[in-house]
Amino acid sequence: MLRRTYDNEVCSLARALEVVGERWTLLIIRDAFTGLRRFDDFHQSLAIARNVLADRLSLLVDEGVFERVRYQDRPERYEYRLTHQGRDLATAVMALMQWGDRHLAGPGGPPRVIEHVSCGSAVRARMFCPTCGTEVGPEDVMTRLTHAVTA
Amino acid sequence: MLRRTYDNEVCSLARALEVVGERWTLLIIRDAFTGLRRFDDFHQSLAIARNVLADRLSLLVDEGVFERVRYQDRPERYEYRLTHQGRDLATAVMALMQWGDRHLAGPGGPPRVIEHVSCGSAVRARMFCPTCGTEVGPEDVMTRLTHAVTA
Repeated sequence: MLRRTYDNEVCSLARALEVVGERWTLLIIRDAFTGLRRFDDFHQSLAIARNVLADRLSLLVDEGVFERVRYQDRPERYEYRLTHQGRDLATAVMALMQWGDRHLAGPGGPPRVIEHVSCGSAVRARMFCPTCGTEVGPEDVMTRLTHAVTA
Repeated sequence: MLRRTYDNEVCSLARALEVVGERWTLLIIRDAFTGLRRFDDFHQSLAIARNVLADRLSLLVDEGVFERVRYQDRPERYEYRLTHQGRDLATAVMALMQWGDRHLAGPGGPPRVIEHVSCGSAVRARMFCPTCGTEVGPEDVMTRLTHAVTA
């Protein structure tokens, strides 16, 4: 998995960024969360070069984020559906979007919201301590290396 | 804020990625969460070119993620401390790391954990619906454009 950029890193964040850290990748995934599935729809939404989009989608299929599904036979057409692994990026997408909303806000409020499907409310990403049963703030955390890095 | 990569995007995620979407940037921030503050410590940890590290740190200072603080007078030496805005990236860093732990795991368990300082437990990033008062799973969310994009 650690191929190009972060070869010397033993880190789950680095592994995640090998999959979703390329330019445009998280915006493609964001668009998939709004319901987009087809190449031309992603292309229209993002206005990036077709070969860049094709490269990103291909990597995301290889890495299990999207499933490539045929939706038409003649001519053959495929669409890209988020897998469970892909949908599991929702928290990360949400956390980055929320950080942008808080600290880099443009005029007119959040341009996109992530909603709880069953009630329509905007959801929030947050950190939670399962031992204390409480939300944890950004001043209350510290990253620690484990044996897997330090051994 | 929307300078180079995502110029046509009206999106808080795109704004966030203009600040933290460059290669290595989130790993620098991860290292800052482990307590690193000095250029040479980041350089030793990440083994990237000094000019790349300097560029990233400079952008992160300009964008308010790090504060550059003098810690020695002769010769002048500076260190990089996460601001509140920078620490507020903890949820995003944690969510990406957690996704890597879940779906791209290497041998030997998570190489890094993010701990609740007061109790030492590993914290989790999750989505929460303030209306329902419940955790929300990745199958239960949908992104919606608001007036700020569609107007």
